[in-house]
Amino acid sequence: MRNVAVIGYGVVGSGTVELFEKNREDICHKIGRDCDIKYICDLRDFPGDKFEDRLVKDFNVILNDEEIEVVAEVVGGATFAYEYTRKLLEKGKSVVTSNKELVAMHGAELLSIAKAHDCNYLFEASVGGGIPIIRPLNKCLAGNKITKIAGILNGTTNFILTKMIKEQMSFEDALSMAQKLGYAEADPTADVEGHDACRKICILASLAFGKHVYPKYVHCSGISHITLDDVEYAENAGYGIKLIGSAEPLDDGRIGVIVCPRLVPHSDLLSNVDDVYNAIRVIGDGSGDILFYGRGAGKLPTASAVVGDIIDCLKHKDRSIMIGWDDCSDKSYVAPYKAMKTTMYVRIKGGDSEALKPAVTELFGKVMYLERNGRPDDELAFMTPNMLESEIDEKLEELSKAASIESKIRLI
Amino acid sequence: MRNVAVIGYGVVGSGTVELFEKNREDICHKIGRDCDIKYICDLRDFPGDKFEDRLVKDFNVILNDEEIEVVAEVVGGATFAYEYTRKLLEKGKSVVTSNKELVAMHGAELLSIAKAHDCNYLFEASVGGGIPIIRPLNKCLAGNKITKIAGILNGTTNFILTKMIKEQMSFEDALSMAQKLGYAEADPTADVEGHDACRKICILASLAFGKHVYPKYVHCSGISHITLDDVEYAENAGYGIKLIGSAEPLDDGRIGVIVCPRLVPHSDLLSNVDDVYNAIRVIGDGSGDILFYGRGAGKLPTASAVVGDIIDCLKHKDRSIMIGWDDCSDKSYVAPYKAMKTTMYVRIKGGDSEALKPAVTELFGKVMYLERNGRPDDELAFMTPNMLESEIDEKLEELSKAASIESKIRLI
Repeated sequence: MRNVAVIGYGVVGSGTVELFEKNREDICHKIGRDCDIKYICDLRDFPGDKFEDRLVKDFNVILNDEEIEVVAEVVGGATFAYEYTRKLLEKGKSVVTSNKELVAMHGAELLSIAKAHDCNYLFEASVGGGIPIIRPLNKCLAGNKITKIAGILNGTTNFILTKMIKEQMSFEDALSMAQKLGYAEADPTADVEGHDACRKICILASLAFGKHVYPKYVHCSGISHITLDDVEYAENAGYGIKLIGSAEPLDDGRIGVIVCPRLVPHSDLLSNVDDVYNAIRVIGDGSGDILFYGRGAGKLPTASAVVGDIIDCLKHKDRSIMIGWDDCSDKSYVAPYKAMKTTMYVRIKGGDSEALKPAVTELFGKVMYLERNGRPDDELAFMTPNMLESEIDEKLEELSKAASIESKIRLI
Repeated sequence: MRNVAVIGYGVVGSGTVELFEKNREDICHKIGRDCDIKYICDLRDFPGDKFEDRLVKDFNVILNDEEIEVVAEVVGGATFAYEYTRKLLEKGKSVVTSNKELVAMHGAELLSIAKAHDCNYLFEASVGGGIPIIRPLNKCLAGNKITKIAGILNGTTNFILTKMIKEQMSFEDALSMAQKLGYAEADPTADVEGHDACRKICILASLAFGKHVYPKYVHCSGISHITLDDVEYAENAGYGIKLIGSAEPLDDGRIGVIVCPRLVPHSDLLSNVDDVYNAIRVIGDGSGDILFYGRGAGKLPTASAVVGDIIDCLKHKDRSIMIGWDDCSDKSYVAPYKAMKTTMYVRIKGGDSEALKPAVTELFGKVMYLERNGRPDDELAFMTPNMLESEIDEKLEELSKAASIESKIRLI
């Protein structure tokens, strides 16, 4: 049976075809029947490509072929991909994807269309690349109330931060190295400013808490403002700096979701996740603390997740297997981050730092001061007590009359 | 619907009932219909227990009740549990279990019975307690050829080793502390000698490589012979000591499976897994290096996995969802461990250590010597080059004419 199609023959698409063909014999054995890739849909030409005879340009060829059971949508974006996915699911063809943008925007709707048409919309590859996280959260941990998710969800920023921490490279140099190595795109905004991580934590939060969490409602700050001075203060105090996406259910039914750099103590495994690796912590009321670690991006790791989903769809033809989330209205369940409690690392500059300490103490009470080699006389770094972020901001507003607030980083 | 039964009301059984009842409303929502625990089967009395009215002593009550769809077998052992499980599956009732002994001995057979009767035999709780590993390996990574599995699979021994490494506690003291804390049983043999870890790596190997790997064919050595001297030599050289179960497919179709303590470099996340935590590394040809970390045992973590499996069975009534392994003959696919290559830490004693060095060099060539504070003049510790274990043994046999071989620990 040539029952599989791939839409998009870029990095992930070609990885998917490569891995599927390499392990096809085993895959057929696992699903208990024959299977193969029939079409690869892309608007570009690939003259001389090994699978040139399977290339098609017209999506409708796939849509209208009765033999096709599963389609891997690895085009990306939320316009054409959205339209393709809807049409395929409405025809009862399962769709698997690495398209985090689409899942984060329309996941609930697409899952419900799949369910209504006895097929599946699977997206293991959309979060954590090759790391199994969607299925574990959706199935293995289904007996738990999830009390917290926190993860390093973007490999590019983790690579940059690792270079800054381990090799004292500046943000700019580390970014340009990441670009040279192909880890960062020419326009690195989506990675560096946290938008990519934001989509991923929204998908995990939606799955874990059963309500669609839209990226547009989530506070998201990136790593471009982190300096080597901050890195050094943190290191001296026993912390690394990581870009963390986190989500937790609040007592009032809302969800606390935020993406931002955080100080992570070295005793925490997350602090030891380096380079382009990702790691996701999930805490359940039964399971306790679980951590998933691996390659969060890249051709074959992402393909590994896509192919796993293809196999699951082939094995469960005409049967919905995912536990979806219900609410696909545009409503926001996200709690304002300023109403959450946090501990904040703060770096200030201005005048004589010793003279600033009484002002800090008056505002925050007793704080922990951090040190770094060659700290200038006019610089001070400290950790606030754990308090509402709105309160911290008020106090810093007050403090800014005496000193300039150079840096604020939340503690994990 | 009161469609669930639990057999065995011990630690895991009571955890399962507790977690299921606590989150029952959410669980019903997830499966899209009502569900509840109807029976708890145990030969003991539990007067005053909250669920006393659901307790039954006769297994046949469960077997013959048409309403029961899923049974959690958390009795343990491979005699009664085996009989119960077979009978239930043959009636088309799904069984979920934490019983690693039974899965390691009869997993292939029970999976095939389940498949033949359109029901499921799930055992997420049998390896890694609350850590999702069975389903990720069986589903998410199904598109990969697995090239290696290596893990810390036993919490008790990891607790003991952590105390030895971090607090210089002797093996005996650490064991007795583990017993006091309830982490080790009065007879700690199954944990300490690696039998428990062995069952777990066999289950993972069977799943990953599609052939039943029997514990009886696997070389298994425990941690009772590890001394604080070994710990110190290892630490000084940048290694921790961990009990590792590992499995890898060999080119000749056999599987290299072994359970033994190993030196693990501190740069490896496995080396940072402390106390009763477990962690499992899986390497796939697509996914690359993946690590799963969490609580490998305990009442609620294990219950988390059991309840996750119950939910999956309820969601997939009359439909087999697992990818099983084929060969349930008694054949051994396990390669003799002596035919595998390894690097070995060796500690020897006898005469003047400086005088022993030429003999070591003659046998092994240039080796790396390790140091510890207050090393006695008659002691020497070194790392062999990577070579066949049979060769190492021959050379050590030769060396034993000049010195006594005190300790041998493989490198990861």
